[in-house]
This record gives sequence, structure tokens and C-alpha cells, in this order.
Amino acid sequence: MSNDLTITNVRPMAGPLASIHIVDGRIASIGEGSNQAEALDGGGAIALAGLVEAHTHLDKTLWGMGWHKHQAGPRLIDKIDNERALKKTLGIDPARQSARQIVLSAAHGTTHIRSHVDVDTEVGLAGIEGVMATRERYRDLIDLEIVAFPQSGMLVRPGTVALLDRALAMGAEVVGGLDPCAIDRDPKGHVDQVFALAQKYGRPVDIHLHEPGEMGAFSMELILERTAALGMQGKVTISHAFCLGAPDRDLVDPLIDALAKANVAIMTTGPASRPAPPVKRLRERGITVCSGSDGIRDTWGPYGSADMLERAMFIGQRNNFRHDQEVEMALDVCTHGGAKVMGLKNYGLVPGCAADIVLVEGESVTEAVVSHAPRRLVVKRGRVVARDGKALMDAP
Amino acid sequence: MSNDLTITNVRPMAGPLASIHIVDGRIASIGEGSNQAEALDGGGAIALAGLVEAHTHLDKTLWGMGWHKHQAGPRLIDKIDNERALKKTLGIDPARQSARQIVLSAAHGTTHIRSHVDVDTEVGLAGIEGVMATRERYRDLIDLEIVAFPQSGMLVRPGTVALLDRALAMGAEVVGGLDPCAIDRDPKGHVDQVFALAQKYGRPVDIHLHEPGEMGAFSMELILERTAALGMQGKVTISHAFCLGAPDRDLVDPLIDALAKANVAIMTTGPASRPAPPVKRLRERGITVCSGSDGIRDTWGPYGSADMLERAMFIGQRNNFRHDQEVEMALDVCTHGGAKVMGLKNYGLVPGCAADIVLVEGESVTEAVVSHAPRRLVVKRGRVVARDGKALMDAP
Repeated sequence: MSNDLTITNVRPMAGPLASIHIVDGRIASIGEGSNQAEALDGGGAIALAGLVEAHTHLDKTLWGMGWHKHQAGPRLIDKIDNERALKKTLGIDPARQSARQIVLSAAHGTTHIRSHVDVDTEVGLAGIEGVMATRERYRDLIDLEIVAFPQSGMLVRPGTVALLDRALAMGAEVVGGLDPCAIDRDPKGHVDQVFALAQKYGRPVDIHLHEPGEMGAFSMELILERTAALGMQGKVTISHAFCLGAPDRDLVDPLIDALAKANVAIMTTGPASRPAPPVKRLRERGITVCSGSDGIRDTWGPYGSADMLERAMFIGQRNNFRHDQEVEMALDVCTHGGAKVMGLKNYGLVPGCAADIVLVEGESVTEAVVSHAPRRLVVKRGRVVARDGKALMDAP
Repeated sequence: MSNDLTITNVRPMAGPLASIHIVDGRIASIGEGSNQAEALDGGGAIALAGLVEAHTHLDKTLWGMGWHKHQAGPRLIDKIDNERALKKTLGIDPARQSARQIVLSAAHGTTHIRSHVDVDTEVGLAGIEGVMATRERYRDLIDLEIVAFPQSGMLVRPGTVALLDRALAMGAEVVGGLDPCAIDRDPKGHVDQVFALAQKYGRPVDIHLHEPGEMGAFSMELILERTAALGMQGKVTISHAFCLGAPDRDLVDPLIDALAKANVAIMTTGPASRPAPPVKRLRERGITVCSGSDGIRDTWGPYGSADMLERAMFIGQRNNFRHDQEVEMALDVCTHGGAKVMGLKNYGLVPGCAADIVLVEGESVTEAVVSHAPRRLVVKRGRVVARDGKALMDAP
């Protein structure tokens, strides 16, 4: 199969009809006609750059394992402990499960994924190894970045730091972290350790911060201080950041100022039941915002489809986006925002970029988001990987 | 076409496989085998009672009219004024548009709809007449209840009360109302007038109450006082009720007590960007909760699919429902909750009830909700009205 292809009769970002000419896996030009042997008719669909899933947990979805009846307790720590126990009894194989989710994501037009992968003293590096095997096996389907993630706590579980160190040495690209106060109980120690690993390996940071209100603001300050002190501007993401959804502008506005100054990115899922970062205000300050599905049908809850167009709708609904340009902003979060956080080179729907393209029905970009109809075609580096909502590669 | 039918090989509420025997449009029995001429194989799908859309605006969806670029101002009154202006320039025909939405709803398995229909001094009764024409035309597809709704205000727009009176005389079943303080500027006058019409025609009441916090609580108290004084317990619904989503339990708990005592129902869409009534706490107090799509792709915003299974998911996400029994509660809101508010007789998936049935894929009820896959089959009073996500009746 060649990586040369022309897709005719598409509307890039719902603009005028055009053909996209792909040579050697890259967009060579966007314009009229077709002079290549292999041409596909896009049927007038909207063409978008490949969707970017910038926050998920590939190693522990239960997709395809039969229905799991949910009964975990209400607190975050209940869900963490419940999950660690169920990993043993349910047999959640990270390689198999990550492969299943990746195939599902590809069917929905996702071409890049950043996945947090659990590292703890019980599973050790099995999650990292499993997801790395999947990454290799599906390398033509999706680009995958791995965050070494201390889901069960880091300092509070001795031995975890050494495992994270090994995960990074093995090829995990990003240093993860989690609730420096609420879970790890030692905010200074936690953040210092995360940044020490980042410095040792020259890697970016992505910290889960569920902590609300003043506690979350304090942890965020610790992260921002180290970002500046270590010159890591542009290399740090704070995921969830519920504290930015607090109603107190006197608390939130200084944090937004500091995020903008330190060039720290925010990941939000657009959570309906939690305080959520104000996407428009963050973007207006030039802060990079990305999004992700978070856990998909895992032991934490039954939701999740791996569809980043639906996710853009959730972000729009959560932020009360009604105007077309606002919904387009939500989509940009799920495309270019994620690409920026992942440091992707050559991402976009312009000549010179990798030919990672998704075709979707809709009169406007906003209609494509709110309808999120099955994707007509998904192209990864110039090769067709999904058609009519179905991936061409099988899941295990 | 007969109203006798057997549907074999289905799992009522995800229980054991069974056949549903329908005679003369009613469920005659649920059990083994088939002895009828006409039998359909349900393919092992889950059978649910027909979905109930208990709050929408059939007269003003823009579905099928080409994409509308949204640019209304941020306040509620901006959207109301914008809509009244666009009704003239866009040519939103209530009969045509309500028919389009009804066909869409039927495809998703909705068998009953309560629709608010605008009555004001500009459109007059054209909305009521158009939706009544649709009700007659699609009577075999869906049961439809009409609320005479003063969207643009009632006392603040002289002439509106007389129009509401005529709408009720013509056959609208429910008296509507809207934000007694914030929009109508005369809370006592507004609520007195709404209940006066209800008393005159012996009809139930359904009031839009967007007012947040203490203002909404005050309006709610006025509604509750009149409900008790006039013996209208069980006949009053408060839609949206954002004030119940206030974080102040000292404000909210007495309202919940009073709602329970007056047997007043609450409608919530599970709004992601607004304070939302706490569904579980309301249900635990025995308060009836129903739901609806609200406006679908209208001048207010681009969202909406008319899918009440997706709506159950939104309610689950908004209320942080993760356990299966909680998600089942969200579905119950979108089925039996709506049926109770609409006063439906013979509603349910048991013998003796009208054969309003929807078949959907899923291992569990919760999976059916979170997946909301295209409905395999929809049956209205024993007749198949939709298959594989498509209604068998055409929209105009």
C-alpha cells in the first residue's frame, strides 16, 4: 500500500470544495483536481486534521471485557483502591486493552494519543510494557505518547519513584504526577520529585490535579514555581485543574495570569459534574488547552466513547458555548491544542504536514461537532485506516 | 396493518430472554414462545418502555433548515428577542418543524412528548395550530401533549393572557409559565395568572424557572404556596429549577422538603453549564423527576439530538452517577418519570400497558444508556414505527 493518495471533493474545515494531494504520507498540496492514480472521492465531507486524544488511560479500559457493574465508593481514593484490587481479579491485560481502545479511537478519527499509564508497586511496569507493545503493533494506525503515571501515589508508596525512573528509561516520554496534597500528602516532596525526574531525562511533565479550590491553587503554584525556576515553560501540562473552575475570581484570575506567564498548558475533559477550567478565558490569555476522554469504561465509571468530536461537544456544553466560533474553539482544543501539548511537528491540515486527516459529515464545523456522525474516512500518514466508522485493523 | 404482534428473543430491562405478546396495541403477556402469525425476532436486544421526552420545543427547531450560524447575545432575554426576530426572517414553520422533530424522536424510541409551544403577541396561536396539525398527522407515531407557553413573557406583553386562554380552549393541555421575577417582572401577578388559567380549564401547570439562587427559590415558594392552596398537588411541574442546584444546602433543603410535601415534579435536562437539581436527592425524597431535550438545534444553540437515551447519559454525567443503579435511575427519569408527569395511563413494560416499546443493544441497561446505539426497533401501540435508527414515516 502506497502512502500517495488524492482525496477529492472534500471541504477542509468546511471551506470550499478541494482535493487533498498526499505524497509520501504528507500533504503535498490542497487544491483542484487529481493527477494521481489512487484517488478517493470524499463525497463533499468536511476534512479536519486528525483528532488528538491528549489524556486517556489506555492500560485499563474494560472495553470488550463484558459489562462491569460499578460499585466503587464515592471518594477518589476509593476508586484508586478499587481499581488496584480489580486489576487482579478481572485480569485487565494492558496490551490487549490498550489495543482495543486504540482501534476504537482510530475509528473515530483520532490520529494521536497521549496516554497516562499506571506505574505502582503492584503492577510495576507491566502497564508500560503492555502499552509499549501496543504502540509498536499499531504504529501505522496511531501515534502514541506514554506518561509514566503514579496513579496510586508516589511518595506515599515507597518504591514507586524507582519504577517511574525505570519507565522513563524504557521509553515513556512524559513524567506524570497526581494530587500532591490530597493523594501524596507531601506537596513539596511530590512536585520536587516529579520535576527531578523530568530534569534527569529531559522530559515534559503532565500532572493530574483534581484538588479543588484553595488546595488545588496551592499545588498549582508549586508546579508553576518549579516550571519557571527550571526553565520548563512550554513543557508542563496540568490535567483536570478543577481549581480553575472555582467561582472566586480573586482565587482563579492570578492562577490564570501565572499559567500564561509560565506557558503551562491545561487539559480539561469538560466535566459535567465538576468545577471546570474556563476554556475561553484560558484561550484568550494564550494558554494552550487540550482535552481527552480520560478513562473509557474502566473501573472508575461506565462512560466514554473515545470520540474526540463528541468530546468537543462536551467541552462546548460545559462551557456554555453556543456561537459557532466558540464550538470551533472547542474543536481546536481537541486538535491543535492537543498537538501543541504533545509537541507534534508537522501537524495540521496544510501542505507540508503529515497526512493525518478525518472526513466527517456536516454543513459547518459546528454541525460536525454536535452531530459527530460516524467518520467517513480516516487517513494516517496517507493511508486509509478507517471507513464509515470502522477501523480497518482488528482489535484483539 | 394489525396491532397484534409478538416480539421474540428480547430482554426486558436487560433481564432474561422473553417474548412480548401484543394484542390490540397492548402488551398481553411477557413470557415464552410465540403463537401469533406476526412475530419479529428481537435478536437478544434489551427491551425498554418507550422513551418520554417531557420537555422540548417542537415549534421552533431548525432541524433540516440548513445550518444556522449562532450569534445571539449572552442573556436569556437576548435569546428570546433574537428568536422572535428570526422567526420572521428564517420562516420557521411550526407544523413542518414539529413534524421533523417528531420523526427524529420516533427514530430514537421516544413514544411520548410534552412540548412547550410559544404563544405571544407576534406569532399569536400559529405555533399551537401548527403543532396541533402535526399531532393529528403523526398520531400513530407519537403521543403529544402541548403546553401553552408564554416564551416572551406574559404580563409584560399585554394580550398574551388572552392568547393563552384561547390556546387552552383550542386544546393545549397544560398551562405554561416563565421566570416570574426575571422575565415577567411581577412574580405574584405571573403565578396568580398561571394558576387562574389552570383553575379555569382544570389543567396542569409546567413553569420554566431559570432563575438561580434566592430569586429562583422565592419564585418556587410562590408556586408551591398556590399548588397547596388550590389542591393542585401532583399537577404541577417546575422545569429547569436551577435554584435547586445552588451549593447552599440551607437554601435548597427546605425547597426540597416543600416540593415533596406539595408533590410538585421537577424537569431537568442535566445541564452541563448550569446549576442543576440534584436528581438522586430529589428521587430519594419521592419527588417525581422527568427530563427532556429542551430546544433542539434552534436559535438558542446548536446542540440537541432528540435522543432520550443520550439524555439519560447527560443526566448521569451531570449528577456524577457511576453506579449501575444510578444510571438506571437516570433512565427511569427519561421513561417513568416523564410518564408520571404527563399523567400517562397504562405506561410501562408490563402486561396491560400500551405496547410502546424500544429495543436497544447492550449487555446491561447502563451500557444501553452510555452507548445509546441506534435503536433496533421502535413499537408504538403495537405497530413498528422505526427500525435500525430510522423512522418508517417520512418527515416533510
